[in-house]
Amino acid sequence: MHSAWTCNCGVDVHAHVIPHDFPAYLGGTAPGGWPAMAPAHACHRQVMIDGKNYRTVSDKCWSPSKRLADFNEMGLGMQAISPMPELLSYWLPAQDGAQLVRYLNEQIALMVSESSGALVGLGAVPLQDMDLALKELDHLKNRLGFAGVEIGSNINGVPIGDARLDPFFEACAAMGLAVFVHALRPTGMDRLVGPAALQQVLAYPTDVGLAAASALTGNLMLRHPTLRIAFSHGGGTLAMLLPRLEQAMSVFPALRERVERSPTEQARSFYFDSLVFDMPTLQHLVQLFGDTQLMIGTDYPFNFHEARPVQRIVQAGFDPRVTQQLIQTNGLRFLGLPTTV
Amino acid sequence: MHSAWTCNCGVDVHAHVIPHDFPAYLGGTAPGGWPAMAPAHACHRQVMIDGKNYRTVSDKCWSPSKRLADFNEMGLGMQAISPMPELLSYWLPAQDGAQLVRYLNEQIALMVSESSGALVGLGAVPLQDMDLALKELDHLKNRLGFAGVEIGSNINGVPIGDARLDPFFEACAAMGLAVFVHALRPTGMDRLVGPAALQQVLAYPTDVGLAAASALTGNLMLRHPTLRIAFSHGGGTLAMLLPRLEQAMSVFPALRERVERSPTEQARSFYFDSLVFDMPTLQHLVQLFGDTQLMIGTDYPFNFHEARPVQRIVQAGFDPRVTQQLIQTNGLRFLGLPTTV
Repeated sequence: MHSAWTCNCGVDVHAHVIPHDFPAYLGGTAPGGWPAMAPAHACHRQVMIDGKNYRTVSDKCWSPSKRLADFNEMGLGMQAISPMPELLSYWLPAQDGAQLVRYLNEQIALMVSESSGALVGLGAVPLQDMDLALKELDHLKNRLGFAGVEIGSNINGVPIGDARLDPFFEACAAMGLAVFVHALRPTGMDRLVGPAALQQVLAYPTDVGLAAASALTGNLMLRHPTLRIAFSHGGGTLAMLLPRLEQAMSVFPALRERVERSPTEQARSFYFDSLVFDMPTLQHLVQLFGDTQLMIGTDYPFNFHEARPVQRIVQAGFDPRVTQQLIQTNGLRFLGLPTTV
Repeated sequence: MHSAWTCNCGVDVHAHVIPHDFPAYLGGTAPGGWPAMAPAHACHRQVMIDGKNYRTVSDKCWSPSKRLADFNEMGLGMQAISPMPELLSYWLPAQDGAQLVRYLNEQIALMVSESSGALVGLGAVPLQDMDLALKELDHLKNRLGFAGVEIGSNINGVPIGDARLDPFFEACAAMGLAVFVHALRPTGMDRLVGPAALQQVLAYPTDVGLAAASALTGNLMLRHPTLRIAFSHGGGTLAMLLPRLEQAMSVFPALRERVERSPTEQARSFYFDSLVFDMPTLQHLVQLFGDTQLMIGTDYPFNFHEARPVQRIVQAGFDPRVTQQLIQTNGLRFLGLPTTV
């Protein structure tokens, strides 16, 4: 079976972009959080936010050719690229945020256009202002031809299952845009003991799990049954929350009144990436969420990424049909692309 | 195999106590959070906190005979009883907290003494003051004969892996007292969409998972290798955090410097209860944490409890040796009791 996957046809839905440069802020003093790039060692640059080095990154973040050069070793044939989440900029004044994500979307569109079909765009919208967000959604769908949009696991602290975000999800469903939910400025930071990296390591999956749970208790999929929505990092902690939430439905009348369909059934209409770094965990998620809902996610090209995503899935020993789905078909279906090879 | 477990010898390490009454506060106005009991319908009473009904509970909370009457149906032979977590009262002034948990411990001791060996005490200590906590620890070990102590998943927001709690864990290890970590006043409340019950349903396992992770990144078991510590609700979200934490060790130098042994290896010296309400999840946890580390937890007698804990484990289809461990031996070992039947 392993040899069947030397075709390099994996579809990775979780990979990030940082542009080589950011535009200077137009007019007056830039608001806090407006990013800039600074030189670093060969092939690298520093993302500067508020005068500090947020992260030193390689040219794989902006160069399509460098990115495509890694496809062979990773077993990939296609990658959906989305902004580094901290660039979603929900905390900027709305017009500033709109300007910044417009620039990001244009940069992503350029990368896609240089990729001969290997890269697919997942853009950003300024969700701090619903009107501007819907306007940008229209732009990235109808002008840039993106497959979908990346959003944070919370919007300035608002859980994604909150009804205030409904117009956004309604538009995505109507336009056939995939929604990729990525961890961002997570809750639970007050419970970490150790270095700053634990934000990514522990609080990110925590926030994603609670985001997915909020979509369940908020009946998101019941309101938008055709929505294609995916959660990063294997859904974070959701897999451990879901059975308890399911059991709670039989215990708490207030929950039964609120949640209009079995949380487990609802969760099996979400998509999830495979970014869990562990074979038994991946097997457990496929069993829990269904073999049609998991797909490759790598967090490429950051340090903390999955270097051998296809190999990881092949080694889990699913039957060939399921392996095919996880490596390729589910990702294509999530992105709204034809699934016939 | 099922028939082998009609012996009613399950050991439940997660069950709670509320006394029939609380003492009036001595001297002046009671501080906020001082509990009281009020009448309710037959066999029930209300726990009143700050003048509000915190929870309406049955006499199974305080009556040993009512509790023991349920053992047969649950398949239990022994139950470790600990305070309803909200009664741990870390937020009270230290002397008040000490007075309240002393009362709780005495009430638990009375229940244990009336149980003919079927109940085992897990007491409380006022961890808002280390000196008072160590004093109460001595009392509950040497005067009351308790097997261990229940603590919150955080102490007024301090993660349990924080070095400030070290004298407590050192004393527990030295005295051979088991430590049962239960969710309490959890983080992540800002991410919930739905009724108040979601605190218990979603935020509790979230806080427990982060508590366990903090014990890993805080090297708790390396400092106290003989400590017996258990995490409620199957360790909450830890199972989904652990592979990512393990992978992160190879990525972040700061994490490698901080965490002195593989987080997975460390986690396999923690104990966990089986309170996950789902067979595949239980199987996954046994695979991840080891078949010597899981044991029955029920949250009895609250509404949201596991009514058939032994049956749940038997149905998971482990081999008979593992079934025996999960139902009985691991719990006895955690509690420091002889494991020969």
